[in-house]
Amino acid sequence: MLVIKEKYIIGVDIGGSKINAGLFKNGKILKSVKIATSKKSRREFLNKIEKIIGELIFKIDKKDLLGIGCGVAGALDLGEGVILNAPNIKILNGFNIKNWLHKKFGCEVKIDNDARLFLRAEYLFGAGKGYKNIVGMTLGTGVGGGIIIGSKMVYGSNDSAGEVGHMVIDHGKDLEVLTVKQIRKSKFSKIATEKFEKNLGIGLSNIINILDPEVIIIGGGAIEDIKIFLPKIEMTAAEFIISPKSRKHVKILIGKLGEDAGAMGAAALFYEL
Amino acid sequence: MLVIKEKYIIGVDIGGSKINAGLFKNGKILKSVKIATSKKSRREFLNKIEKIIGELIFKIDKKDLLGIGCGVAGALDLGEGVILNAPNIKILNGFNIKNWLHKKFGCEVKIDNDARLFLRAEYLFGAGKGYKNIVGMTLGTGVGGGIIIGSKMVYGSNDSAGEVGHMVIDHGKDLEVLTVKQIRKSKFSKIATEKFEKNLGIGLSNIINILDPEVIIIGGGAIEDIKIFLPKIEMTAAEFIISPKSRKHVKILIGKLGEDAGAMGAAALFYEL
Repeated sequence: MLVIKEKYIIGVDIGGSKINAGLFKNGKILKSVKIATSKKSRREFLNKIEKIIGELIFKIDKKDLLGIGCGVAGALDLGEGVILNAPNIKILNGFNIKNWLHKKFGCEVKIDNDARLFLRAEYLFGAGKGYKNIVGMTLGTGVGGGIIIGSKMVYGSNDSAGEVGHMVIDHGKDLEVLTVKQIRKSKFSKIATEKFEKNLGIGLSNIINILDPEVIIIGGGAIEDIKIFLPKIEMTAAEFIISPKSRKHVKILIGKLGEDAGAMGAAALFYEL
Repeated sequence: MLVIKEKYIIGVDIGGSKINAGLFKNGKILKSVKIATSKKSRREFLNKIEKIIGELIFKIDKKDLLGIGCGVAGALDLGEGVILNAPNIKILNGFNIKNWLHKKFGCEVKIDNDARLFLRAEYLFGAGKGYKNIVGMTLGTGVGGGIIIGSKMVYGSNDSAGEVGHMVIDHGKDLEVLTVKQIRKSKFSKIATEKFEKNLGIGLSNIINILDPEVIIIGGGAIEDIKIFLPKIEMTAAEFIISPKSRKHVKILIGKLGEDAGAMGAAALFYEL
């Protein structure tokens, strides 16, 4: 890990329901802003983003700003900087957020998927410290994921590795549809809770059977609502894990960094991994 | 890739229904033997293994034998060399095949899971040449898998990464139960075929959503029976792939090396990857 000292970094996390931005230096958060995600028009959305970043860098000399890291909940073209498909912020689809931020603030810009940034932050500063093989899963408006193998982030061949929420696990339905969205609709009825526990348990066991990580770190906006169900979810997962050694050793942890994880991870795009 | 020149390597592939062994030099197969897997007793099984390896190395000067690579269809402790759980060759469960081969033949022995060896061989010599991110899937007595990311084999934290056959995809049932085993039972009735196509398509799309490989290579004993269904299976997979770029670019290929892939991969354990 290469920490760039003495320079400021802006981290922005654009989620389906809120935007979280922070000013970072030496891996520490100095100042942060949270606003609701504006979905009316792209123009209004961008005005708000410009405003909150403007506030964060207001007192900083431009030459002391290393860059802006930006996370978006959706499929991105990381090289081009285009938001390909953000299912919960459709006004951004097709928009080149990287070029726009670069033009507005004149600094280097790096972007990534929000779930990968959650994992990056937890790996560098939170629950994933010291592990080499980690899967991160975010349960929020949708279900996202990221994969670290041998201390390296796995991007895949088209920057879309880690989409664990779109793993189909029952009746042609995917983990995202069968878990977070389901539990919110049903307001924790007993039957809905049991289904949700079983489906999330199966989702975790599938990940463990395929990737055999040391640890799975769960975070995202819905984690507070569901963490009481974790022991039951782990029991279901254990039933379906094929390797006795994995079953014994794998850990399922909750992220330590709370709602700042995304913005921290975005700033940490300027750290080598 | 480091090819060890001028030395012989034995590759043995112990599958659920047959054992395939070969004598290799400079990446080429010189001689091979195939026998049915003897499941009556461990003693009889080992006698046969000793006999076929003995025949392959009969005319070779011991100092010219680099080592023996051995693949087993099951969960292994690669460090210790113990077969933890071979569901289709139960007589081997708990047996230290690595130590036994070393004592019998006095050379270095390396072992690995048979599906990973299929992938290793296809990557080095077959359908996977030139790709960096590959998933291999074997459809045989069971369903196995292996993963290469960034040209490196992924072993996971407990040597059990790649168990794609144990991914649950419907009704608490896994890909192995819902595909190969199912299609064999039902002798290709129309309904069974449709279910099988759908389930294998979903299994592939899950792998693509999670790992975003350039290519998935399918092999194993059942591939000849099912390759006519591949176009339909690919169509189902495409329905469930979330990233438009992955959907467009991912390739689903059939292995090129046929039934020798496992033994070739076993010998190739002596090649750096």
